[in-house]
Amino acid sequence: MNRGFTQQDAAGRLRHLITLDGLPRGLLVELLDRAQEYAGRPGELAPRGSDLAGWTVANLFAEPSTRTRASFELAAVRLGADPINLDVMLSSRAKGESIIDTIYTLQEMQVDVFVIRDAEPGIHEYVARHVGDHVAVISGGEAHVSHPTQGLLDALTIRQCKGGFDGLVVTITGDIRHSRVARSAHRALATLGAAEIRIVAPPEFMPDAAEFSGARRYESFDQAIDGADVVMMLRIQRERAIGAAQADPVRYHQQYGLTAERLARAKPQAIVMHPGPMNRGVELTSDVADGPQSVIRRQVANGVAVRMAVLAHLADARRRRGA
Amino acid sequence: MNRGFTQQDAAGRLRHLITLDGLPRGLLVELLDRAQEYAGRPGELAPRGSDLAGWTVANLFAEPSTRTRASFELAAVRLGADPINLDVMLSSRAKGESIIDTIYTLQEMQVDVFVIRDAEPGIHEYVARHVGDHVAVISGGEAHVSHPTQGLLDALTIRQCKGGFDGLVVTITGDIRHSRVARSAHRALATLGAAEIRIVAPPEFMPDAAEFSGARRYESFDQAIDGADVVMMLRIQRERAIGAAQADPVRYHQQYGLTAERLARAKPQAIVMHPGPMNRGVELTSDVADGPQSVIRRQVANGVAVRMAVLAHLADARRRRGA
Amino acid sequence: MNRGFTQQDAAGRLRHLITLDGLPRGLLVELLDRAQEYAGRPGELAPRGSDLAGWTVANLFAEPSTRTRASFELAAVRLGADPINLDVMLSSRAKGESIIDTIYTLQEMQVDVFVIRDAEPGIHEYVARHVGDHVAVISGGEAHVSHPTQGLLDALTIRQCKGGFDGLVVTITGDIRHSRVARSAHRALATLGAAEIRIVAPPEFMPDAAEFSGARRYESFDQAIDGADVVMMLRIQRERAIGAAQADPVRYHQQYGLTAERLARAKPQAIVMHPGPMNRGVELTSDVADGPQSVIRRQVANGVAVRMAVLAHLADARRRRGA
Repeated sequence: MNRGFTQQDAAGRLRHLITLDGLPRGLLVELLDRAQEYAGRPGELAPRGSDLAGWTVANLFAEPSTRTRASFELAAVRLGADPINLDVMLSSRAKGESIIDTIYTLQEMQVDVFVIRDAEPGIHEYVARHVGDHVAVISGGEAHVSHPTQGLLDALTIRQCKGGFDGLVVTITGDIRHSRVARSAHRALATLGAAEIRIVAPPEFMPDAAEFSGARRYESFDQAIDGADVVMMLRIQRERAIGAAQADPVRYHQQYGLTAERLARAKPQAIVMHPGPMNRGVELTSDVADGPQSVIRRQVANGVAVRMAVLAHLADARRRRGA
Repeated sequence: MNRGFTQQDAAGRLRHLITLDGLPRGLLVELLDRAQEYAGRPGELAPRGSDLAGWTVANLFAEPSTRTRASFELAAVRLGADPINLDVMLSSRAKGESIIDTIYTLQEMQVDVFVIRDAEPGIHEYVARHVGDHVAVISGGEAHVSHPTQGLLDALTIRQCKGGFDGLVVTITGDIRHSRVARSAHRALATLGAAEIRIVAPPEFMPDAAEFSGARRYESFDQAIDGADVVMMLRIQRERAIGAAQADPVRYHQQYGLTAERLARAKPQAIVMHPGPMNRGVELTSDVADGPQSVIRRQVANGVAVRMAVLAHLADARRRRGA
Repeated sequence: MNRGFTQQDAAGRLRHLITLDGLPRGLLVELLDRAQEYAGRPGELAPRGSDLAGWTVANLFAEPSTRTRASFELAAVRLGADPINLDVMLSSRAKGESIIDTIYTLQEMQVDVFVIRDAEPGIHEYVARHVGDHVAVISGGEAHVSHPTQGLLDALTIRQCKGGFDGLVVTITGDIRHSRVARSAHRALATLGAAEIRIVAPPEFMPDAAEFSGARRYESFDQAIDGADVVMMLRIQRERAIGAAQADPVRYHQQYGLTAERLARAKPQAIVMHPGPMNRGVELTSDVADGPQSVIRRQVANGVAVRMAVLAHLADARRRRGA
């Protein structure tokens, strides 16, 4: 983020949620605690609240049908907000000024929260710098840079399964270089105190040396998974892999795919994660995806809970600020 | 449906609604009775209820703008549910597994009901076999195979106009071969005890001999309509008619179009039905479509009522099962 | 409008809102007064009401993502209605009859209000002539002809800033010939008693002599803006400007763009308006658009308030009629 911009208000509460970078451990724990309250049980009606009664939440997603858009919409509705969906990719507009004109227009319609997914780095912060004091911006995904609610839901899932982060070894595998999921997970886990974060990928998919500070880098998945508590698989974006030697899914799977055999090298109770949607047979085999160590479905459920927690926190912070 | 799959729970209530095949008469009557309570009167506000308060109903339609999608959405909202619309055609996805991953994902977001329209036969049952005990699947249309809520709304409309099904002669005309509407209407009427179901169409549009058991087959519309109580016209899908000799709309209309002259051959109080959208001047003339014997608009109103009844029944059944 | 059609009921209240033509001053003032009650303050939650509890409002817009559609949807929701969005351009349907079949279908689903944007002149009135007594049609934009809620929001914004319309000089600049915004603003201001309406544009963009009766016509923007209280800029539709000598944005801006220098010729407290979206640097410079005399954002906020007022008035009128 640029100098002089902060996501937090004077009391340390969130004004926006654009990145997990720089957020203190206490704030992340508070969000996870709140999300835990919203984590429903299968077969029961979804947990609800009224923290956002009277609020308007605008979802600005270029692709309206994504699971993340649905997750945010349900989170807003279940807290009593009115959602409004707009198929808008801000950065694809012709002129820079019109981005902010679009935002001003919606703000004038008394939209209280903008949830934005965009492929252009920096656009979320740009919007956040320009909105009124009472309006919050939440990132629903920013290029390869940041996906903070995904990082939080990953952390919540790990905490539910492992009781905490102390001493945990987390192995992240896949196209780390282009992954906002990996960046936000790394940031969440580092802040929450995971003992060791390992990253492993084909050379083309490894991030620059300056990134993922503190993480241990591996070339061999077999070595990287050895003794892991958490195995986090990333989606392979076929379009991004073009030209990469590893683009061949069969070869990729041989070296970096998660199989039952490979999973046996992790700790016996290790959990398997994936942000979805999965390419079964590429990133992991179906027996692993559907096996007893998989927590992939629980991640989805936690996604709604985390988004409810973020929205409720933002509403609470605004009320306390009197904005 | 495949062996071992049933839409009903141990108490005989619906778990899903994928087809009318095999559903007992008592259950159909119960659904019609319930729908009758929701059938509104023109000029009044729509009937409402709270049977689905706290429920989430996901509409998975490949084409979001259809009247059926709108009808289901309004039915859900008027019972207090939160609707979520997703433009998804499950069967068009690249890999078979991902169909179920999409469903699992939505299920984890605590979606309670999936309303699915899809062009692939069997996909509704496939989904129903995989969802959790608390999740219901409703068909909003399955290829040429089944359209159960349409069959129910047709039955409700007939019952309202004729008082019942005893002794009724029903003539179905149009592209019966490719019509899920005709299949579900035939099933509903046969179960409910209509005296005689007649089907008439150009040879290309007639179903195989094994289908529509019990129905009387005609070549001449003039003969088939003679003495009918109900004349059910089907929409001609122009794209399906390519290559058929009868594809010429003018010639089709001459032989199988409903005119005032032809309608005079039916019983004096015979009603005219059409599932919409109509090709006026092809399936029927405008004077018939808008005439005193037409109940086409009432069918639409009954569509919302029937969908409310099905949703309320499913919610009731789930509560009784304790799922 | 055609002979024999009226938007008002026997008591003079609105049955529909298709045009501002012919509506009496008292009715416009009543709508502005009502809208003023709904005009929210920045940083506060949006004003709400329950005037439309139980109502269903269908938005029929060919392009779903417009600000006007969002504005109508939010207005409906904030009065307690259930919105339903359909991506439908009525006039683009193949056959004339099916327009009305689409409307009848939605009416049977107990839709109470249709908000329609369409590029074909006359289609709104055509629909209004055919719907039931209890159903209202609101124009969300009709070709180049009419945009009544825009005219009302412009009037409301002027009244808020200027206290009234007496003695006001209003200058309208841009593609007046093709502008429904200009036509509805002219009608509102003429009815409400603005002292002088001036229109100025390149010759290709000037309306026929029979239109904009009472307005003073200018060729020079510098002369037209002299002493103005209100400067209303219109969006240049690039696609419409093809072939026009003034299509070159740079040249257009030189002659008809609003700059700080030009604005200085208006009265010192003159306000600057634009219906959005703006082409910054074409219709006006950014320093003017964002400057202290600009009320462009307030226009957007007033748009929701005006649409709430129209909906609440229509609901009130229906209740009084007992329809």
